[in-house]
Amino acid sequence: TATDHLAEQKHLKELLSSLIAVAYDLTAELDFDRLFPLIIGKVTEVMSAERTSLYIIDWERHELWTKVAEQVEQIRLPLGKGISGRVAESGEMLNVADAWELPYFDRTFDQEHQFRTRSVLCMPIKNHVGEKIGVLQVINKKGKERFDSEDEIFLKALTSQVGIALENSLLIEELLLSFNSSIRTLSAMVDARHPLTAGHSQRVTDYSLLIAREMGLSKDEVETLKYAAILHDIGKIGIRDAILLKNGQFIPEERAEMNTHPVKTKAILDKFHFPKGMQEVPDIAVHHHEKVNGQGYPDGLTGDQLPLGSKIMAVADVFDALTSRRDYPKYASGETLNGDPMPLPMAISILKKEAGTHFDPDVVAAFLSCLPQALLLYRGDHFPPEYVDDMIRSLAPDLLP
Amino acid sequence: TATDHLAEQKHLKELLSSLIAVAYDLTAELDFDRLFPLIIGKVTEVMSAERTSLYIIDWERHELWTKVAEQVEQIRLPLGKGISGRVAESGEMLNVADAWELPYFDRTFDQEHQFRTRSVLCMPIKNHVGEKIGVLQVINKKGKERFDSEDEIFLKALTSQVGIALENSLLIEELLLSFNSSIRTLSAMVDARHPLTAGHSQRVTDYSLLIAREMGLSKDEVETLKYAAILHDIGKIGIRDAILLKNGQFIPEERAEMNTHPVKTKAILDKFHFPKGMQEVPDIAVHHHEKVNGQGYPDGLTGDQLPLGSKIMAVADVFDALTSRRDYPKYASGETLNGDPMPLPMAISILKKEAGTHFDPDVVAAFLSCLPQALLLYRGDHFPPEYVDDMIRSLAPDLLP
Repeated sequence: TATDHLAEQKHLKELLSSLIAVAYDLTAELDFDRLFPLIIGKVTEVMSAERTSLYIIDWERHELWTKVAEQVEQIRLPLGKGISGRVAESGEMLNVADAWELPYFDRTFDQEHQFRTRSVLCMPIKNHVGEKIGVLQVINKKGKERFDSEDEIFLKALTSQVGIALENSLLIEELLLSFNSSIRTLSAMVDARHPLTAGHSQRVTDYSLLIAREMGLSKDEVETLKYAAILHDIGKIGIRDAILLKNGQFIPEERAEMNTHPVKTKAILDKFHFPKGMQEVPDIAVHHHEKVNGQGYPDGLTGDQLPLGSKIMAVADVFDALTSRRDYPKYASGETLNGDPMPLPMAISILKKEAGTHFDPDVVAAFLSCLPQALLLYRGDHFPPEYVDDMIRSLAPDLLP
Repeated sequence: TATDHLAEQKHLKELLSSLIAVAYDLTAELDFDRLFPLIIGKVTEVMSAERTSLYIIDWERHELWTKVAEQVEQIRLPLGKGISGRVAESGEMLNVADAWELPYFDRTFDQEHQFRTRSVLCMPIKNHVGEKIGVLQVINKKGKERFDSEDEIFLKALTSQVGIALENSLLIEELLLSFNSSIRTLSAMVDARHPLTAGHSQRVTDYSLLIAREMGLSKDEVETLKYAAILHDIGKIGIRDAILLKNGQFIPEERAEMNTHPVKTKAILDKFHFPKGMQEVPDIAVHHHEKVNGQGYPDGLTGDQLPLGSKIMAVADVFDALTSRRDYPKYASGETLNGDPMPLPMAISILKKEAGTHFDPDVVAAFLSCLPQALLLYRGDHFPPEYVDDMIRSLAPDLLP
């Protein structure tokens, strides 16, 4: 009848416009970690299913993997095993009324979660050149016995958008990985010109990021700080060996040349094109040797004039210098001055003593709050266990292995 | 009637599924230069229009710009002017039956192309946070007086996908720009440690890319060569000042240390994560000092064992060394050996003479074919006009200004 036709037409229109809306939402999200749950949520809703699983194929390991919301760990299963594994391998859709009737269905999830998987519609996800990249599986059609042919057509259209969205976000991840690896490698090469500063920029970055999270910086601020920290000493590329590698104390002229490195860093970073939201990197990096009392360099800015990122890096930078070997004498052990890593309690008391003069007191407080995490990060690597374990034990005994 | 309903339903279904297909195609294309004509083609087809214009908003210059197929130059128009300019400024759709009746319609295009713009449907393009980023305009609905309300709904849905596709591809462009600028800056910093090698890596890259295009390398091969060339000397970061900056000829031990730089380059590049399709960068970069007769370093590979990219870089690298000032004597002018740029005819005769021993003859031939372009690239910059003009005039007189 005409009424049926109208209802059918309305239904179709709604279905397809919701598909377009989902396509829009999915392709607009390029952050892989946010995209993953977004796909699961949207597909579950649009398909009127009880659950949705999304698996990505890892061709190198011949496995599928998925992430469960809120959990960091990936769940992995071999290609070819279970419903998803079979669909991933064959590239053919599977539509069943009751999964429990399939001999190869794995009931582990159902048993662990007191769930009953009945109807399943499982679709391979392909990229734009037709290569299989994953599997999308909807479980238990609500209000119906099983998924019908309309669901199949609909999920197929949806899956093609999911494929594009996944591929785009993976490409972005890859580009970011490339950018980050190049930055990190080159920064490490500059550190490595002096055997005692190898790894310095990476440690300063790690400490800075711990402080930033402790202080609740925004995502853009954290990203900006990350690049500023990893690159803060890149200007040392322009310092001559005779200065940079000098074993012993600097004469004033040498100190003056060494102290040009933040300005050289800025000159290099000003030529970089940083992604949107990270324009502050050069400005934050250039001020890592400033002090809140205005006695630092190169600009002698005071605490209220300094970017928070620079003040965070100042603490991270000095802490790493104190707790690493250096050519210059840092403290007296027994009778002799030496450049060994300073005992931890002494390094920490210096940070505390200089809070308000060299350092921003809030930053020092935030660093002390995450100190056990900072020490654990490099325990057994840069820090011998005996150097850090007393401190970790006294602050956070549960963290020690 | 029921038949009308069925036809209407079929029409709707077709319309929407073509929208989904277009959405798929658009969001799958992340290369901005390919995306632009793809959008224009797809929209013209799906909307049954005679022409489509796509404009991107440049908020900094307060202008719109577009690209016409096959032309390199952008067409720019001020925000607020004409139909597109007004829609870009107001953010409101415009649907007119005859553009010529609008006092602000600019007839220049029509007059120049003997075209008659009648019906126009012009829609603002917004990104996923609702900011205006461009304008999509379809012109002259085929078979109808004007665009109707269904066209409006349809173009609106299409425009939202166009917005996502543009935004994604612009993000990719930005990330690539960031990656490239960081690579280029750091490579330039390494060159700049010695005043006579400043700009060397960039010139070697430019010469290599000219040769690569002349020889018809694929897009991936060209990209790989680009990174290998810009980074080929990055290993010099690990060469001591005493060697790198030595003014005069090396003793054998110094030469040996200097000659470790390709291996150091490879060690650095092996830590990079290069995007897909560019995994060969370290391998191509490490072999830029090899010779086709197997007498080069570090591996003494012969012509058939060497990647083409390395053989291209070898020619570009030596050509730049010969035509730039160096500390070491390169040739005898009159009575004295000197390190000045060698006269061009002499440099070219060396390339020719060494074809088959040092260089791949095909690469030398390709380089000589694009020599005028290579010289023009740096005429008035690295090359004084009087140094290159005779050569350019003899090879390609039309190219000289």
